[in-house]
Amino acid sequence: MEKTSCNETSLPMKMKSSFKPETVTVFGTGDFGRSLGNKMFQCGYSVVFGSRNPELSGLHPKGIEVMSYAEAAHRSDLIIIAIHREHYTFLTELAEELQGKILVDVSNNLKLNQYPESNAEYLSQLVPGAKIVKAFNTVSAWALQSGTLDASRQVFVCGDDKESKQRVMDIGRTLGLIATDQGSLMAAKEIENYPLQLFPMWKFPLYLSAGLCVFYFVYSVIRDVIYPYVYEKKDQTFALAISIPNRIFPGMALSLLALVYLPGIMAAILQLYRGTKYSHFPKWLDHWMLCRKQLGLVALAFAFLHVIYTLVIPIRYYVRWKLNSKVINQIKTNKTDPFNTTTAWLGDSYVALGILGFFLFVLLGITSLPSVSNMVNWREFRFIQSKLGYLTLILCTAHTLVFGGKRFLSPSLLRWYLPPIYVLSLIIPCTVLVLKFILVMPCFSRPLTRIQQGWERMSKASPKAHSGNGKAEV
Amino acid sequence: MEKTSCNETSLPMKMKSSFKPETVTVFGTGDFGRSLGNKMFQCGYSVVFGSRNPELSGLHPKGIEVMSYAEAAHRSDLIIIAIHREHYTFLTELAEELQGKILVDVSNNLKLNQYPESNAEYLSQLVPGAKIVKAFNTVSAWALQSGTLDASRQVFVCGDDKESKQRVMDIGRTLGLIATDQGSLMAAKEIENYPLQLFPMWKFPLYLSAGLCVFYFVYSVIRDVIYPYVYEKKDQTFALAISIPNRIFPGMALSLLALVYLPGIMAAILQLYRGTKYSHFPKWLDHWMLCRKQLGLVALAFAFLHVIYTLVIPIRYYVRWKLNSKVINQIKTNKTDPFNTTTAWLGDSYVALGILGFFLFVLLGITSLPSVSNMVNWREFRFIQSKLGYLTLILCTAHTLVFGGKRFLSPSLLRWYLPPIYVLSLIIPCTVLVLKFILVMPCFSRPLTRIQQGWERMSKASPKAHSGNGKAEV
Amino acid sequence: MEKTSCNETSLPMKMKSSFKPETVTVFGTGDFGRSLGNKMFQCGYSVVFGSRNPELSGLHPKGIEVMSYAEAAHRSDLIIIAIHREHYTFLTELAEELQGKILVDVSNNLKLNQYPESNAEYLSQLVPGAKIVKAFNTVSAWALQSGTLDASRQVFVCGDDKESKQRVMDIGRTLGLIATDQGSLMAAKEIENYPLQLFPMWKFPLYLSAGLCVFYFVYSVIRDVIYPYVYEKKDQTFALAISIPNRIFPGMALSLLALVYLPGIMAAILQLYRGTKYSHFPKWLDHWMLCRKQLGLVALAFAFLHVIYTLVIPIRYYVRWKLNSKVINQIKTNKTDPFNTTTAWLGDSYVALGILGFFLFVLLGITSLPSVSNMVNWREFRFIQSKLGYLTLILCTAHTLVFGGKRFLSPSLLRWYLPPIYVLSLIIPCTVLVLKFILVMPCFSRPLTRIQQGWERMSKASPKAHSGNGKAEV
Repeated sequence: MEKTSCNETSLPMKMKSSFKPETVTVFGTGDFGRSLGNKMFQCGYSVVFGSRNPELSGLHPKGIEVMSYAEAAHRSDLIIIAIHREHYTFLTELAEELQGKILVDVSNNLKLNQYPESNAEYLSQLVPGAKIVKAFNTVSAWALQSGTLDASRQVFVCGDDKESKQRVMDIGRTLGLIATDQGSLMAAKEIENYPLQLFPMWKFPLYLSAGLCVFYFVYSVIRDVIYPYVYEKKDQTFALAISIPNRIFPGMALSLLALVYLPGIMAAILQLYRGTKYSHFPKWLDHWMLCRKQLGLVALAFAFLHVIYTLVIPIRYYVRWKLNSKVINQIKTNKTDPFNTTTAWLGDSYVALGILGFFLFVLLGITSLPSVSNMVNWREFRFIQSKLGYLTLILCTAHTLVFGGKRFLSPSLLRWYLPPIYVLSLIIPCTVLVLKFILVMPCFSRPLTRIQQGWERMSKASPKAHSGNGKAEV
Repeated sequence: MEKTSCNETSLPMKMKSSFKPETVTVFGTGDFGRSLGNKMFQCGYSVVFGSRNPELSGLHPKGIEVMSYAEAAHRSDLIIIAIHREHYTFLTELAEELQGKILVDVSNNLKLNQYPESNAEYLSQLVPGAKIVKAFNTVSAWALQSGTLDASRQVFVCGDDKESKQRVMDIGRTLGLIATDQGSLMAAKEIENYPLQLFPMWKFPLYLSAGLCVFYFVYSVIRDVIYPYVYEKKDQTFALAISIPNRIFPGMALSLLALVYLPGIMAAILQLYRGTKYSHFPKWLDHWMLCRKQLGLVALAFAFLHVIYTLVIPIRYYVRWKLNSKVINQIKTNKTDPFNTTTAWLGDSYVALGILGFFLFVLLGITSLPSVSNMVNWREFRFIQSKLGYLTLILCTAHTLVFGGKRFLSPSLLRWYLPPIYVLSLIIPCTVLVLKFILVMPCFSRPLTRIQQGWERMSKASPKAHSGNGKAEV
Repeated sequence: MEKTSCNETSLPMKMKSSFKPETVTVFGTGDFGRSLGNKMFQCGYSVVFGSRNPELSGLHPKGIEVMSYAEAAHRSDLIIIAIHREHYTFLTELAEELQGKILVDVSNNLKLNQYPESNAEYLSQLVPGAKIVKAFNTVSAWALQSGTLDASRQVFVCGDDKESKQRVMDIGRTLGLIATDQGSLMAAKEIENYPLQLFPMWKFPLYLSAGLCVFYFVYSVIRDVIYPYVYEKKDQTFALAISIPNRIFPGMALSLLALVYLPGIMAAILQLYRGTKYSHFPKWLDHWMLCRKQLGLVALAFAFLHVIYTLVIPIRYYVRWKLNSKVINQIKTNKTDPFNTTTAWLGDSYVALGILGFFLFVLLGITSLPSVSNMVNWREFRFIQSKLGYLTLILCTAHTLVFGGKRFLSPSLLRWYLPPIYVLSLIIPCTVLVLKFILVMPCFSRPLTRIQQGWERMSKASPKAHSGNGKAEV
């Protein structure tokens, strides 16, 4: 599909060319060093390996030389250090040869923040005369070997010397990678931590929903499996496969969707109370606000499951059996149910509200795809995420309310004083909607807007003359 | 997920460094100025604020100084003007100090085309000796403060001085933004209008579909609610929730999908008639052609709704009641319906056609995602959008035709001489398919291809020797 | 939506400016030359056309001059050669005028690898004194004219002279295109082949699935249409529309999903057997491994179809008729089926397993979108594609096994000794899962991990001291 990088078929052509290729030295003949060296060789660079035991090193394509570190260092002014941090010390012996050269640190650690300073900064302390560039640590040896650069085509480059960085970024681009400048060498720590992360922004949403899910599950098992077993001696365990999940999932989706909008309301109340937007929020609130997109996507996943679990209802054996026995009963008793327009209205309404809510939810999900959200401006993004988001919440809450509609009246609902799950799941969304409704009223929304445009209450005199930038953000 | 920008945790490290940071001056301590200044400070820049009343300005992180405009201007050769356009005039007093410096205009207006010239050009007239760069107006203060750069990481930069632009773009990238060069200062107008837009390409498709939707709705209410009420005194209002939408949505989807392909056919006919592709199309046709993707996505949204509305049919109370009473009737009359193979064939066929059409439709939708369409070449894009698109249209039209199949014969269909909606919705797609079929015939397709490759009828002599580029586009 | 490029409305403003625009010469007034020239003119460049018969050339916007090649060449040091390769020879006459100038080759061929060397390299042989840059061949004339740059905004630029490349890339960016540097002129061949490709990575997956699909179809027609016709004289042809596809599609989805994981297992076995990862895999295995993403997406498409085909079951005439006649039968015989908990369990389980498998499958599909996979690091990508991928395969295999559960016992299943399709489709996934289970056991996984980190068996001495980069890839 994509023209990603040089490939081997073009190799012979490069040979013909009179154009003299740039030489790059790689220190270390380990897996990553070899992969990177061979890839650069394929892409037209002249590559030289430096090794402790050059005569012992394994297979290399013809045209690649392996020599001692000192010799290899002589060959190029750009040296890739494909060696573990623990072995960096031997570089001090070569300090003189490395003077003024570009050393590219490609190393990774095994844990986040394993060392006090980043490997690249450590290297720059060991060889102070060299220009250190951090790069290529986000790419895997396997991806370089196989050419499948699906993930991790991103190469983050940092360093204190602009020209060195530029040269390393040029190599990256020739290799088909996306090289981005991350600033000075101080960014190396972050770049080294990056490949060790496993979905950091997803942790809170996933733990939260796992916890809520377990709670709903236990609650539902008590209400829907243990209670009928105790009182009616009925075996309802088969409900564990579909019926109970299909009570838990919509509850999860609605609660989590409401939790997406709760922190924004809390922040607004805090700002109103403090009279300024310039004091920091509590840490947990800040983190919560940064995770809202992930929370919303988890909610969407539950909504998606709820939709499919609902659509399979008519093909379930249990449902077919129940419907059939109803018909058979009607015939045996010779009593036909008349058509009830209210039931038809209620039934169709909650289904329609649910479908429309799900539709908007999917729309929100699509606009949160990076390639889509990068194409909308701030105003459009806020329109979607705030206006459409609240509309989704309103529709989904209404769906649940109307679903309960016919049953709120029935007293037989409480089992051991426990209401059904959908009643529980309505608590947070209703709270959020009520608070939002209050905040939207002019007496609150006007001061809030002013605060969010930078106005501060209490500050005795504030130079308002040309402050603000004509943007009103919530 | 993404390594977006510097963060505060790296702040202490920056302090240690002996590396002398670049100083940037910000004029104006309003919301946006403060947010941008603090962000730059976090990212390692030394930041100085210029203010009218420096002693009165509010909270700033330690290390940021606030001083008078003149003093602040002395500190750096790069000054960010975070001030409303109306207050720019005071800068004329500082003209001497600003001589040769880079002034970054970050301002936005409240309306599209509020002033005859852009704010940046106005600034360059006020301070002719300075190098003006337009930038950062697409980023919001809130995004800078919170670090959630989901939308609007795009920074469009323009200016007449290349080096100044480069410096501003470097700052943007250090802040984790995506800076793109938009050319000379003349682009400022467009850049200032950009954040004020609200889905400009979606307006025509949305208005069109809203209008069509209202028409179909009124039509359907007359046929399916008022008619039975008048003639049979039946209350069919509950059909408003699901039955009627599920007649409107497929009609909308089919009509809009056909409207995606209609302008292409009109353009081809115009080109054939005129004998050249170099004369402009009428404005409305041009705009229509540019909105086709959006039209198609609106059609897909209706198709998606139609699918879910159809799949919930068997869980509706009304449907279950009707099916049950049928069975009960059969038993009471002791007459069982025999299995009708033709009905089975027709029923299964229209469902299968619909599913396949929807499947291709979803495929078209996925390939219109920016990240996907950026990865296909022109030939692949045309294959998908043209070949697969017409196949989708054919399948969806066939789905509707076969759906009607059993009922076209029944005379009871007309109510007040109004045919059902699906008959109406077939008009445009059938027209499009017939016209396309005619255009595909060699007597039309051959001259059309030549015209689209640049050939012109009537032009007495045309230098064909080495014109064209071997590309045949429709 | 996106601010893509300059547009005509800004034209008048450019006129006012005192800023002197850069002049670009275009050789050739064919379709592509004209489109590119006019677009550059709109974007503020001064454009001059060179033509064989300047007086005969057609419509051009005011301000664009057409003159002889020699004259046009004098006007600018950057010349775009919008001429077919066959006509390049006339450029040798102009060799003197073209000395030291930048010639931009924009040509495409009609077939892949039509000529031994690329057009750009041929041009550089014809005019050795010029600096040749290959660019713009991936953009279509139509896209330039209409401004709809949905596809093919990618411009690949290559050339041996860095500065020339930079200038051409600047022009591309001013035109709203995404210009990427592809290295030296040797990359021209690949760049010229790029726009001629039609989904090269999709060929193998699509052919494979087409073959498998035909096999399953014929197999199913024999079992489900011909067999009942021969033995029971029953007309089951209507099953061709939905019932039979809904047996083929899940079989396809499961088999193809397993085929995604099979090559990885083969590769692991090969590596274990050879004791090294540095010898090449057979070509077919390499290609298979590179197509895994596409194979998986085809499998997802079949799974999606299977889901919708399953959800429409209850609205099918055939199904409704069968269910009704069952009820009627029960009443007539006055015998009601009792509720069978085991059937309820089995039925609900296989549905639930299928839903969860499909859910994870969709998740895998979403993460394979380029914009999503670009944002995850290598560790996250491997977590999704390997861990979640195998979980999906396990769930889908379990879904099929439990689906068969009730029926594996029935002897009536074999028709002409042919088992049902779902039994066939279980062969590959079960093989894959068993092999994976074996490979995961420590006695195999430990040496495999070491091999994949670069360790080699048999190599008498290997310098392990600082080899490896702390990355363990499978």
